Amino acid sequence: MVTVMLAIGLSVFAQVSNSSDSILFHKLYNEALKNGETDMNLRYLTSRIGARISGSLQAQQTVEWTKKVLAQYKPDSIYLQPVTVPHWVRGTKEISYYTVKGRRVRMDVAALGRSISTDGLLTAGVVEVRSWAELAALPNKAVKGKFVFFNRAMDAGEIETFKAYLGAADQRAQGAIAASRRGAVGALVRSLTPAKDDYPHTGAMSYDTAVPKIPAAALSTNSADLLSDALKKDPSLHYTLRMHCVQLPDVQSYNVIAEIRGTKYPDEYVTVGAHLDTWDLSEGASDDGAGLVQAMEVLRLFRATALQPERTVRIILYMNEEAGAHGAIEYAKQARLRNEKHIAVIESDAGGFAPRGFRIETTPEAMARFQQWKELFIPYKAGDIQLQQRGVDLVPMKEQATALISLDCDDSRLFYIHHSVLDTYDKINPREVAMGAATMAAMVALVSKYGL
Amino acid sequence: MVTVMLAIGLSVFAQVSNSSDSILFHKLYNEALKNGETDMNLRYLTSRIGARISGSLQAQQTVEWTKKVLAQYKPDSIYLQPVTVPHWVRGTKEISYYTVKGRRVRMDVAALGRSISTDGLLTAGVVEVRSWAELAALPNKAVKGKFVFFNRAMDAGEIETFKAYLGAADQRAQGAIAASRRGAVGALVRSLTPAKDDYPHTGAMSYDTAVPKIPAAALSTNSADLLSDALKKDPSLHYTLRMHCVQLPDVQSYNVIAEIRGTKYPDEYVTVGAHLDTWDLSEGASDDGAGLVQAMEVLRLFRATALQPERTVRIILYMNEEAGAHGAIEYAKQARLRNEKHIAVIESDAGGFAPRGFRIETTPEAMARFQQWKELFIPYKAGDIQLQQRGVDLVPMKEQATALISLDCDDSRLFYIHHSVLDTYDKINPREVAMGAATMAAMVALVSKYGL
Repeated sequence: MVTVMLAIGLSVFAQVSNSSDSILFHKLYNEALKNGETDMNLRYLTSRIGARISGSLQAQQTVEWTKKVLAQYKPDSIYLQPVTVPHWVRGTKEISYYTVKGRRVRMDVAALGRSISTDGLLTAGVVEVRSWAELAALPNKAVKGKFVFFNRAMDAGEIETFKAYLGAADQRAQGAIAASRRGAVGALVRSLTPAKDDYPHTGAMSYDTAVPKIPAAALSTNSADLLSDALKKDPSLHYTLRMHCVQLPDVQSYNVIAEIRGTKYPDEYVTVGAHLDTWDLSEGASDDGAGLVQAMEVLRLFRATALQPERTVRIILYMNEEAGAHGAIEYAKQARLRNEKHIAVIESDAGGFAPRGFRIETTPEAMARFQQWKELFIPYKAGDIQLQQRGVDLVPMKEQATALISLDCDDSRLFYIHHSVLDTYDKINPREVAMGAATMAAMVALVSKYGL
Repeated sequence: MVTVMLAIGLSVFAQVSNSSDSILFHKLYNEALKNGETDMNLRYLTSRIGARISGSLQAQQTVEWTKKVLAQYKPDSIYLQPVTVPHWVRGTKEISYYTVKGRRVRMDVAALGRSISTDGLLTAGVVEVRSWAELAALPNKAVKGKFVFFNRAMDAGEIETFKAYLGAADQRAQGAIAASRRGAVGALVRSLTPAKDDYPHTGAMSYDTAVPKIPAAALSTNSADLLSDALKKDPSLHYTLRMHCVQLPDVQSYNVIAEIRGTKYPDEYVTVGAHLDTWDLSEGASDDGAGLVQAMEVLRLFRATALQPERTVRIILYMNEEAGAHGAIEYAKQARLRNEKHIAVIESDAGGFAPRGFRIETTPEAMARFQQWKELFIPYKAGDIQLQQRGVDLVPMKEQATALISLDCDDSRLFYIHHSVLDTYDKINPREVAMGAATMAAMVALVSKYGL
């Protein structure tokens, strides 16, 4: 152990002494903080375009607007990559309440993304579970013809909120399938947020062709607590839900791609991206508006600091991360068909808060390289570099890229607003977004200079 | 260098292997995150009491309310420490505009704390400076009878925003004195914020008995930019200011103190505190509402986890940090009179955002001890421990305490809202405040267990 520390200590020292990288970092952060355009762009995106669920007019506007912004930053090339995406719409606001002794108590709900409608008012009993084991242990008659209410909360004591999220998100993703398999008529899922409030948080759910599709909705945490209490007093209460959502025909859409050609290895690629689409409940300032303007800013920062990458840097804005990652899958498919060599694929989709570092999936050898670079990021408070898979849009490149790199941000605030009406511009701090853009640009600069 | 690394490496290892401290940390954070009362208390403070400038009724209400809350957490003793404080009031909202070619352009301003009024409308020319050197270089006739407009912005490129703040705050603190010395009739100061917006940020200014007192006001950054542009076009424009502020007679007020007696060294003290008062423009959720509820939470966390400190832990809520730190000065005076031995004085007054670590002023020997503890804080993302003096309320204890310790928080957001109408409850994240409370409690636990 002592030897290892020594070795790392020395190589870090060697790296830190590379003052040209330190100077480059300073230039990038300084430019982002003093002349950055992330805030101006995020304000435009959130106020002029707003929610941009895949398949929508606003999603198409986002494609056109980001292409225009990137063109202003003078890439060597810019183009749209066609991708076919689903088009789900919520329709009129949901109606939802439970009834005890003739009294209706209104619930705050939102259809989960991709859910079918209820086809009119759907009224049934409710059975509450907090785990798959609890559901499995229930006799058939306790589930059949009812709503299954998945009420496991995010673990408030978990320090990594992404872990707390993943520890409860299975209910949203798989709840309708598991409930339908047992003969339930609907799935109600506690919203994935640490807050106790009245805002439902939507997000992707799934169906399985082997069982009937049943409607699925998110309940606000206050509504979930109320319903849970009411069920304790009266397990036979009835719940009513009306959802108007519909899956429209698929739509022709696009990824947006811009490039700076590498001076030395133009056929080796370092990509940096974010996703164009959002859910429909809010303007998606955090998910992933911040990431989108950060990815575009990387191009601006390279141009403003006259940085010529040795490998080709590709800005890639993915369509439809939220409902199937069709854009990312198409990007990976095209890269494979063209036999493109990807050194690293980088993304920002962690909320746009104060950057802390990176979460990276890569080889041990490449990870050692990233750990050497760590010291360069520490003065910018972004030196927390850990091995972990995170980004949905990076996964399709898993077999083709040496490293999948996600910008990591302070994770305190994201899940309070994620996928809900609360994800608005005022929750985002301009300086944090600018710092994140510089942090991504710095990583792109290192990988495009040194390779992996 | 290699030897030093080795030595630190080994002692860190020894420390980390002390699993009882790790377990204690886990207990404290878990309790704060799952059952914490910081959010409930902050909501009460900001919505039911609100702004609480020293000398005000609300300041007195805060004394009474915090004493009540602390009493509920069952300290071994609780008492009020009398302290005489100034009582400055803003009065009616300020009137301010400049006039060019008969057209009035309204400016967003706020009197600086402790400023005198203008005694009716005050109209004069304006001379703009960005440094003391610029002011010194001006001929007397360019300054005499005018407003001096101090328009140096916070350095947007500075990574540590506290440094950027201190790099511009001298204008607010000393501007009126320097301007008056040159015969000016008033001081206008650019607000200390990284934002470009319409909100003036107030804060303490000073007078010197050697020169006449002149009124001093903060301009919003947008107003400052507008005025600066207008002066370029017409250096002879006139500026009008009316402020109604007045210094009322001093008021009897209090520090609030609660103690858990040390089991082994009851006569050795570890204090943990925050300040009761705010400026008058907002409810002070961040400055220092968050710190106040965190300091109280430390007591609750000790009781909830049945933690018995070996040294006496003293919660100290200081009155009047904002306008002279009279509470902290009185506390230090009383401690000196009683010859109390203070091991460490700890405070939270950095905004209540995600905790990053601590800023500490202490001896090299004690600092080595803190660096050993660092590894315990890293899993909670609060391992950034640096030598630096920060807390205003700690300074009076400089000669009497081994260490002055300030909780350090993510500094991205503070100065956007600091001392302005923007410092409201909605800017604060409940989880960040809870994490900060646990981080302080953990530091109190270590110092009260091991000493320094």
